[in-house]
Amino acid sequence: MTSATIDQKAVSTIRLLAVDAVAAANSGHPGAPLGLAPAAHVLWKQMKFNPRDTKWVNRDRFVLSNGHACALLYSLLVLFKFDLHVSDLKQFRQLGSKTPGHPEVLDVPGVEVTTGPLGQGIANAVGLAIAQKQFAATYNKPDITISDNYTYAFLGDGCLMEGVSGEASSLAGHLKLNNLIAFWDDNKISIDGSTEVSFDEDVIARYRAYGWNIVEVEDADDNLEAIANAIVEAKKSKDKPTLIKLVTIIGYGSLAQGTHGVHGSPLKADDIKQLKTKWGFNPEESFAIPQEVSDYYSSHVQENIKVYNDWHATFKAYKEKYPKEGAEIQRRLDGKLPEGWKDALPRFTPADKAVATRKLSEGVISALSPIIPEFIGGSADLTPSNLTKVAGSIDFQPPSSGLGDYAGRYIRYGVREHGMGAIMNGIAAFGANYKNYGGTFLNFVSYAAGAVRLSALSHHPVTWVATHDSIGLGEDGPTHQPIETLAHFRAIPNLSVWRPADGNETSAAYLSAVEATSHPTIIALTRQNLPQLEGSSIEAASKGGYTLIKNDKPDVIIVASGSEVAISVDASKKLAEEGIKANVVSLPDFFTFDKQSFDYKLSVLPDGVPIMSVEVMSTFGWSKYSHEQFGLNRFGASGKAPELYKYFEFTPEGVAGRAAKTVQFYKGKTVYSPLNTAF
Amino acid sequence: MTSATIDQKAVSTIRLLAVDAVAAANSGHPGAPLGLAPAAHVLWKQMKFNPRDTKWVNRDRFVLSNGHACALLYSLLVLFKFDLHVSDLKQFRQLGSKTPGHPEVLDVPGVEVTTGPLGQGIANAVGLAIAQKQFAATYNKPDITISDNYTYAFLGDGCLMEGVSGEASSLAGHLKLNNLIAFWDDNKISIDGSTEVSFDEDVIARYRAYGWNIVEVEDADDNLEAIANAIVEAKKSKDKPTLIKLVTIIGYGSLAQGTHGVHGSPLKADDIKQLKTKWGFNPEESFAIPQEVSDYYSSHVQENIKVYNDWHATFKAYKEKYPKEGAEIQRRLDGKLPEGWKDALPRFTPADKAVATRKLSEGVISALSPIIPEFIGGSADLTPSNLTKVAGSIDFQPPSSGLGDYAGRYIRYGVREHGMGAIMNGIAAFGANYKNYGGTFLNFVSYAAGAVRLSALSHHPVTWVATHDSIGLGEDGPTHQPIETLAHFRAIPNLSVWRPADGNETSAAYLSAVEATSHPTIIALTRQNLPQLEGSSIEAASKGGYTLIKNDKPDVIIVASGSEVAISVDASKKLAEEGIKANVVSLPDFFTFDKQSFDYKLSVLPDGVPIMSVEVMSTFGWSKYSHEQFGLNRFGASGKAPELYKYFEFTPEGVAGRAAKTVQFYKGKTVYSPLNTAF
Repeated sequence: MTSATIDQKAVSTIRLLAVDAVAAANSGHPGAPLGLAPAAHVLWKQMKFNPRDTKWVNRDRFVLSNGHACALLYSLLVLFKFDLHVSDLKQFRQLGSKTPGHPEVLDVPGVEVTTGPLGQGIANAVGLAIAQKQFAATYNKPDITISDNYTYAFLGDGCLMEGVSGEASSLAGHLKLNNLIAFWDDNKISIDGSTEVSFDEDVIARYRAYGWNIVEVEDADDNLEAIANAIVEAKKSKDKPTLIKLVTIIGYGSLAQGTHGVHGSPLKADDIKQLKTKWGFNPEESFAIPQEVSDYYSSHVQENIKVYNDWHATFKAYKEKYPKEGAEIQRRLDGKLPEGWKDALPRFTPADKAVATRKLSEGVISALSPIIPEFIGGSADLTPSNLTKVAGSIDFQPPSSGLGDYAGRYIRYGVREHGMGAIMNGIAAFGANYKNYGGTFLNFVSYAAGAVRLSALSHHPVTWVATHDSIGLGEDGPTHQPIETLAHFRAIPNLSVWRPADGNETSAAYLSAVEATSHPTIIALTRQNLPQLEGSSIEAASKGGYTLIKNDKPDVIIVASGSEVAISVDASKKLAEEGIKANVVSLPDFFTFDKQSFDYKLSVLPDGVPIMSVEVMSTFGWSKYSHEQFGLNRFGASGKAPELYKYFEFTPEGVAGRAAKTVQFYKGKTVYSPLNTAF
Repeated sequence: MTSATIDQKAVSTIRLLAVDAVAAANSGHPGAPLGLAPAAHVLWKQMKFNPRDTKWVNRDRFVLSNGHACALLYSLLVLFKFDLHVSDLKQFRQLGSKTPGHPEVLDVPGVEVTTGPLGQGIANAVGLAIAQKQFAATYNKPDITISDNYTYAFLGDGCLMEGVSGEASSLAGHLKLNNLIAFWDDNKISIDGSTEVSFDEDVIARYRAYGWNIVEVEDADDNLEAIANAIVEAKKSKDKPTLIKLVTIIGYGSLAQGTHGVHGSPLKADDIKQLKTKWGFNPEESFAIPQEVSDYYSSHVQENIKVYNDWHATFKAYKEKYPKEGAEIQRRLDGKLPEGWKDALPRFTPADKAVATRKLSEGVISALSPIIPEFIGGSADLTPSNLTKVAGSIDFQPPSSGLGDYAGRYIRYGVREHGMGAIMNGIAAFGANYKNYGGTFLNFVSYAAGAVRLSALSHHPVTWVATHDSIGLGEDGPTHQPIETLAHFRAIPNLSVWRPADGNETSAAYLSAVEATSHPTIIALTRQNLPQLEGSSIEAASKGGYTLIKNDKPDVIIVASGSEVAISVDASKKLAEEGIKANVVSLPDFFTFDKQSFDYKLSVLPDGVPIMSVEVMSTFGWSKYSHEQFGLNRFGASGKAPELYKYFEFTPEGVAGRAAKTVQFYKGKTVYSPLNTAF
């Protein structure tokens, strides 16, 4: 068989595996796999990876931003001998299978990031490319290269229409990420039909405007050589990411090719048969992998394993020649933090002065950054407000800019919260233990909701430094004051949402965030000063909730978070003067508290005492821990912070008054802890 | 005084009013007002509006997308004799003032849309321009023009970095909205310093790629003539929106001009004095409006009132010549819906077949559209999935495209959820009673979270048709299956979130959404079929929650929403066999239910009976109405919908088993309704 013939046969195999998987599931998207199989084949043939070690740090990364085309990706993973098999393809989209309806990083060996929500994947790819640049600049030596992998992404028109992709792509151009090569599947079809109905912008000109290198392949359905040349061309780019435009026909080969009918529905049985016949396959056979195709891919895998082994030999030499850096890389690859890092966490006593938790957060970041090289981060153009930058630290910037270098650890995201969230996921997905954070106002983390939920779903341990966390931000007013924000994020599974009340709790929040390996964290921080609390400690706060003021036989328990804890403490003192014994519980993180033992939780929020929550935002969800809720179930207002707190009665008097009403209301009633449930 | 001199003096007056307001508040953003005052002056001088009738349908709209520059806007409103005064400027950013920290449409006479969260305003402006085109194409006659206003927007670098602005701008180019003119304040400064640190893309080339007309003014700090010419140039555009690039110096005139120091902090006292001296004002006087400047603006207002009166004369003639259309416009301007429209809402009985609520929603849209001309909408490229398009209806498209026309009422948004959300707000803000909806999957409404919260804050009665509302969507898997989504939106104040259980409830949801004048609505709809329930009705559902199955002295109450109601009904039957009397409550909308009388609510969820909620997503917030919660506090999975329901035990057996446990657990305990609270 000639090389061209076997390549063509291999492409047909990919196409038909995808088509058969979708048909077997009677659900899925055959159109994009049919169009993109040639590009996938050509690309993967020259990618470096080891299917037996999918976490190898110097592998090339492949991101399927148009995740609905996952039958394509799964077929590639099978053919390139990952731990995914034809039997898995037959279970496509079935409950419990290794081939879910969109690529899931936790479920499918070889998938780099979870995609499907459009626009996320290409932004993840930008993060993967940033991490590679940062890792390479930190550890490569003039004589030994440890990191030089590429990040590749496929994306469709849908991804390009989403704003998040524009945000990330603009930043990628600014950062001159020439290690990023994206393939645009220009098939001119989306779900509503022709892209002409809503998307006739000049994508190429837009990406040029972002500072990207452009390569175009006009016949990507069958011209494998042109695709290969395009990749060669892209790799020549010295200072720009590359967008390769692939003109394809959606559903190539199908009787319905070129229509949106092939986008998201299985092909009909006779259509599949004609495809197989046309491409020299047995029309009666499904999931066929010709032996010569299997062998062909095997030989590529064998070559790749040599590349992999060579890298390990290089890394061994590196560790000998550069023992300090070598040990650091090894530690990071082992997923271990530097020994003793926790000792650097600031601790406070009530004698310490009142400080805004955003400022305390700056203290923690400044303490940890010098110790933990993989702790990197940035802000969405709110650096002086978020206080996310260590004084004197170097920006992550292209060296040619004169503004920093690629070993820099501070990322200027621009006003691009959604892009930042998705890029953070990409940095985390790179591996090498990256613990990366991004700053913005708490209210604007919502702009990135699509990325935040994917952090949680994908177990990316990223951290949001979310300052200006309430009406306490003052004059900027209701457009900037979070009300629903904490409820939103607390309702996301596997997401830790801290709202520390003082310095020790802020340190606890970072302790939790930096130690996390499989969940993201949002840390909500104040603009205004808060006192250091009597009874707080990193250890106590690390349980997510704890009793700060404890009475024998309390009449009421006030449970609060963040800036309302100190107010509740003052309220408790006021109540004591009236003869009412009020415990105060600080509950900085529901997620962490929920993980404690039932006995511990019940000791904090016991039976027999009415519990009232205090938090200056939506009460939604607080009934999980309390019988009564004092909050702000309306939008805020523009004014000085102290005046707003007074106006909305978040004062010791306002809290004490409601606590007294609570005591009165429950007098004589039997009260059960809300934690006590039937199932 | 020469015209040039008075213009310059007027510009200085605007600048100094803004500076004085920020100084008085000791909070705010003087930089952008100083840079943009000349453009604002030139633009407003030629805008048509009536400060005494801020809702005039044919006024030009002005949107300050960089809302932090609101001191500029408030100064303009004072000078152009709106119901805003120097005394209000003196109260800038104070609690209860008419001059909040960002422009709030509800608080400030003359503000068109609430802005501040970056990128929203320009997208609102696209919506305002869409509405104008649609209104004009619907009602203008060859001999009488009723609608011909322009929409203008100011935006800064921050707005341009946000993805939402890119989404909306791309669509504006596609739609050829030549009635939209945006001014980019190219001052090269954002909060992190020079835009060079993160934003060096070629904005002009990007907007050209979107299909925009470009005009550049290189010296917009003082060249009023160039600005005026640019507007003339922009208005010549026949088929493109225009972006006017204004090269300005942030904080123009200040000692700190051109630095990010003037962006968000008041100028120092001596800086303000030198500004006033330099511009011929008394350095000791604040909030000065020279008489000649006041008179100058008054004369413009007088001219404008003539334009306004002329329009009313035209409209009178129109009503005589075109009585049908005239009456319809008048009805819409009066904010009244067509008489009898509610009769068109479909009604169902249990004999009717099981149908997906997304399909039932299509039925309602198809029934209402022919009757209510202001009921328009679209989808973010999910038309065949959302079922949002009336068969045979015409697209809103530029006539030259051959795909529709501007009187079309179906908008192809492309895959741009956030842009769609912000555009919907703009369409609503246009007035003329527009009731506009947008379709996407429920999970992807989250992409638009930033716009949704502004709908609620600004009282825009827009509707999200949010289909595929749970794991019931099946194979697409956890990336597409909402878990936290309803909790998120239920926690937003002033937002109605419906999850109808059948046809009557779907009709009730639309009844509520279309009648709404001051709140937005999200309608969560199933992909899968649901039976028509015994006992449901539009009237009952219109209370937001009601008892569907009622027992004397029930042992337990099961409260559910959407697809889980029918399952709960079946569970109740199963429980009856075991001798357990289970009421079933359908609670399709928390927001509407909360507004009912306490007695009514307590009749539905009374004291003395344990209440268990059932909803196949996060239980977060359900403890507000129930003692026990059955939900899905984890991400979903990819698989066939019925298998997922079974796997997660959302079956009659699964519900009945938990209800039985609930009965057992609360036996002998005193139970209070969760509605019964102390304050």
